[in-house]
Amino acid sequence: MVRRSGRRPGKPGTRDTILDAARAVFAERGYDTSTIRAIATSAGVDPALVHHYFGTKEQLFLAAMRFPVNPGELLPKVLAGDRAALGERLVRMFVTVWDSPAGAAGVALLRSAVSSEWTARLLREFLTTQVLRRVLDQLDVDPAEVPLRGSLVASQLVGLALMRYVIRLEPVASAAPETLIATVGPTVHRYLTGELGG
Amino acid sequence: MVRRSGRRPGKPGTRDTILDAARAVFAERGYDTSTIRAIATSAGVDPALVHHYFGTKEQLFLAAMRFPVNPGELLPKVLAGDRAALGERLVRMFVTVWDSPAGAAGVALLRSAVSSEWTARLLREFLTTQVLRRVLDQLDVDPAEVPLRGSLVASQLVGLALMRYVIRLEPVASAAPETLIATVGPTVHRYLTGELGG
Repeated sequence: MVRRSGRRPGKPGTRDTILDAARAVFAERGYDTSTIRAIATSAGVDPALVHHYFGTKEQLFLAAMRFPVNPGELLPKVLAGDRAALGERLVRMFVTVWDSPAGAAGVALLRSAVSSEWTARLLREFLTTQVLRRVLDQLDVDPAEVPLRGSLVASQLVGLALMRYVIRLEPVASAAPETLIATVGPTVHRYLTGELGG
Repeated sequence: MVRRSGRRPGKPGTRDTILDAARAVFAERGYDTSTIRAIATSAGVDPALVHHYFGTKEQLFLAAMRFPVNPGELLPKVLAGDRAALGERLVRMFVTVWDSPAGAAGVALLRSAVSSEWTARLLREFLTTQVLRRVLDQLDVDPAEVPLRGSLVASQLVGLALMRYVIRLEPVASAAPETLIATVGPTVHRYLTGELGG
């Protein structure tokens, strides 16, 4: 076993113990009220060791989800630029990430969330705190509508991922990204900023 | 064990044997090219016995999917009436069925399709032949666009089911049906009959 760092290496398996504790704490308390301290206590390690291995709470959450990209880095690019094309840019980013090697982790996460209430909770926290809130906080929409808009966006984008990468319903399964951006982009745009109807 | 009919009862377990064979044949060949005869051969029974137990190929398919409602009976109601409100009627029917006790079977089907390629194939066949084809065949749209329109509708509706009934993301999870009909109806309507963009 090769040690990447000479500092505070912890016992073998400590990293996995921390990740298991993180999943349990995030699923039980939700992202916002979970703390590095509580996760460290649950794992039986010093909080400094958790920071050493994983950095911030956000980075620990992404590691616990086994999520290979950081929406906190990608979403500012989606939010920059012409607001009229925001929905299309979000679909473009979504399809680009899922079409990349990172998509395999997305499929695994989706499969796990469907079969386990525990992972479903983590996925809800992920969607809400890491993706939807980041986008909707930047938009000039009625704050009372933000949760509904966010969950509608999730229903379309996760449904698209399900059909394209898991159920593999044609032609969505092998459509060019541009086709999906042109057809699904306006839907996501309306959910984000448009008239919701009713 | 109580026999409901004195005619051709078959051996105990024959019904399940036929259903297992039906799932395998439908998944392997697809709905259109599967026959009652091939399923009977695979199950080692007489085709007349399959008809006796399950009726038509369509009824056998629904039984094999453990699908408690028949889209062939429900969809004509959706298609009747004002075409401008077609998307809203389809979402209304979808949410009504999933909110009913039948929804539990839908959740089970979705879970199974996500974890098993075999069930995913059956779900693809179900969506295509029992739901989407029935709706889109009645609409005045370019036949070349029908498969894409159908799979976009599926991405939104199955995504809605996933978020509302499986992942349980709020507020979509507990929103009133009228809220979903008003917000998701226009999306489904555009996918069915509107300008697809691009």
